[in-house]
Formats: sequence, C-alpha cells, structure tokens
Amino acid sequence: MITSHHNPLLKDVRRLAARKERGRFVAEGEDLLAAAREAGWEPVHLLRAGIEVSEEALAKVSSLASGTRELAVFEERWAAPAGPLCVALWGVKDPGNVGTVLRAALAFGASSVVLGPGTADPYGPKAVRASMGAIFAVPVARAAAVDELPGVRIALDARRGDPLRGPAEGEVSIVVGAERAGLPQDVLDACDRAAHIPIANESLNAAMAATLAVYELTRVTEHQC
Amino acid sequence: MITSHHNPLLKDVRRLAARKERGRFVAEGEDLLAAAREAGWEPVHLLRAGIEVSEEALAKVSSLASGTRELAVFEERWAAPAGPLCVALWGVKDPGNVGTVLRAALAFGASSVVLGPGTADPYGPKAVRASMGAIFAVPVARAAAVDELPGVRIALDARRGDPLRGPAEGEVSIVVGAERAGLPQDVLDACDRAAHIPIANESLNAAMAATLAVYELTRVTEHQC
Repeated sequence: MITSHHNPLLKDVRRLAARKERGRFVAEGEDLLAAAREAGWEPVHLLRAGIEVSEEALAKVSSLASGTRELAVFEERWAAPAGPLCVALWGVKDPGNVGTVLRAALAFGASSVVLGPGTADPYGPKAVRASMGAIFAVPVARAAAVDELPGVRIALDARRGDPLRGPAEGEVSIVVGAERAGLPQDVLDACDRAAHIPIANESLNAAMAATLAVYELTRVTEHQC
Repeated sequence: MITSHHNPLLKDVRRLAARKERGRFVAEGEDLLAAAREAGWEPVHLLRAGIEVSEEALAKVSSLASGTRELAVFEERWAAPAGPLCVALWGVKDPGNVGTVLRAALAFGASSVVLGPGTADPYGPKAVRASMGAIFAVPVARAAAVDELPGVRIALDARRGDPLRGPAEGEVSIVVGAERAGLPQDVLDACDRAAHIPIANESLNAAMAATLAVYELTRVTEHQC
C-alpha cells in the first residue's frame, strides 16, 4: 500500500490533475468512477483509500476539499466529430461550462461534443467533475476549423439569424461561442446559417445556450399539424 | 478614505458577505453594480477603490480572488410569489444553481423566483455572482408551502407525469427540487400535477431543469396548426 506522497505514481497523478502532462487524466469520487465503469472504461491506475493507497496519501493528491475514497487514471479518448447532432464549442474557456455541455449532450442524446480553438480542456478536473460522468459516455472530438464539422453548421448567436427551432432534420452541427465575445466573424462566415435562442432579456451563458439548443433540436413535437 | 480593514463599515461588509447578518447583502464588481444601477437599486454603501476606500483595504473584504474595484451594500428585497410564470425552488442547496435559475428566469421573462424550504440564500455572494445581475431584476420571494404559489402548480420530476409542454396557459408555478433527492412526497402531493423534461439519458441538475422548463413554458410556437 502506498503511504508516501513522494511515491512516483502519486507524483504522476498530481502532474496529470494539474494538466502539466496530457494523454491521461484523473477522475475522483465514487460517482464518477461508477460512471466510468458503467461506460466500460478501464482505469490505467485505480487508487482506493486503505487498499492501494493510504487515506492520508490519497487526500494529499485529491483535488476535492473533502478528500476522496477513490481516484483513477484513465487514457484520454478522442473521437472524430460525428453527427447526426454534433455540439461544437468555440472559445468556451470555462471548464465548468464544458462539463455542463457534456452533460446536456448526454441527456439529450447528442452524438459528439467537439472542442474548437480556445476551448477548455474537457479532461481537466473541473470539466470532468462538472460532466458528472458524461465525459465517459459522450464522444469528445477536437477541430481546428468549422469545415471539419458534420452536416449543416448552425452558428448559435444571440444577435443573429432566426429563432432556433427543432427538431433537426438531417445532420446538424450547432456551434456555440464564448459568453461575452460570441463567435468570431470567420467562424460565423464558415457556418451555413445563424440562429438564436429567443430570450426576453439579457444573455445566456455558453452552457445554458448549448443545453437549450440540444433540447430544442431533439424536442419531439407531439401535436402534428 | 478608509484605509484600515478594522474600519467598522468594512467589518460590517465582511459579516454580510459571510451571511452572519442578514437584511442587507454585498455585491462586487463593475458588471454586477452596473446591473444594479440599471435596475434602479440604490446602494446603502458604495465602496470604490481609491475613492471611498483604499485598494488594499477593499481587497481584504473582497470575496473575489482577483480583488475588486467596486463593492456595494444593498438592502435585500423580498416580493410575494407572483405569476403568470413563477419558478419555485424546493431544497436546492447549491447557491450557484439558485443564481443560474435567477438568470434563466430573467432571460425568459418569468415573473418571480420563489425560494422554498432548504433552498440556498439568493443574497449570498455565490448566488449573487452566478445570477450575473439577475438578482436585481427578478422579483425574489419566499414560501413555506406549495399553497402559497400562484396558479396551477406543476411539480417538475424526472420520473413522473407527462413531458412538460408549453406554452403555459394561464398562471403557472413550476416547482423544482434538489438534483438527487427530487421533490419530497408532501410537495408532490400538494402540486396539481407532475411533469418532466424528456431526456435520453441521465439526470439534469436543478438549474438546467428549471432553465429548460421556463424555456419550454415561454416557447412560442411559430407554426400554427
């Protein structure tokens, strides 16, 4: 049992949790690790308090204020951008928002979440935690340009286009920008059209806008005309 | 100019920010204070760095890691629960979620946000910050029981009732519970009916569920049958 926090594996965990090293990532807590198991992810390392590692040594590498009973290291997985419903984030810097979008993507059955330039690392501890395990269930991809996205590309922009109305017909990528800055002009230009969430007042943050967009695009109309 | 953090006013600010005293609350940062001004709220005290207070003394009472340029104390305002669209939170302990719901209520023009038992203080610093200023624009009320809520009371519950479908007809109160526990049986019984957000997988947090509910209930159908 590991008892020293100088142990090389624990040092490795700290480096990964601080994202000083990439390729693998850390997930902590029984709920997250249960989500990983359910989704069939095998950890590279599993560290349980009192089994593989002492409680004290585990607490020292935990990023949770209350410590954790279980921590695991996994290999990152990167998919290709895929439809029929792809959510692409462009310049969304807040890792909590990235995690929340993963969660919404899972809730409404989106096919993939694509991280464009300037978007927070989905495998950082805050994004993993905010995803509530959705990081293990939703395919995550990277893209450098809008033309890598599948289907009709819709720029979600508070001030442009028509109100977004679902259900989506055919393959759609919805592109969401940063809360204040919105989408840069070249990204808007590269999209097929723009649409917005009709709101009465003020702006929505990126996670709320993306959540409402996937809700709307997967919304089943019950009353047929 | 106040330069000592032993100053009685700064001591008062610290007590209010820690919610050791109620009735008044603290808001920090230029964006929040701009939202207050726009909504016509007059601060009881205004503390600007280099004007009423030294930068150093202000940094010591700021709850922001980066410090603040402006901080103000306001009187809390409590309204009565009001329709036509009222969002009621029951046992929503996370102040960030309370703030996010305020923001969604403002975005979609809900008439009031009601805090039921066991719900986080909307005037605490985290809720105020998460509201992005919506705390100054949306009427906030308290209720001890469901029968204080206006109109038809709909319990939002992941596992019960029909899919929630808007637009709302007449006065509606939508009652949202805690993420894991959901609504207690006596609250469900006191509501007129239950409804859920139809999702493919997993659960939504209270803020996301409430946001989607107000979106759905205010959603205007463009294509008439």
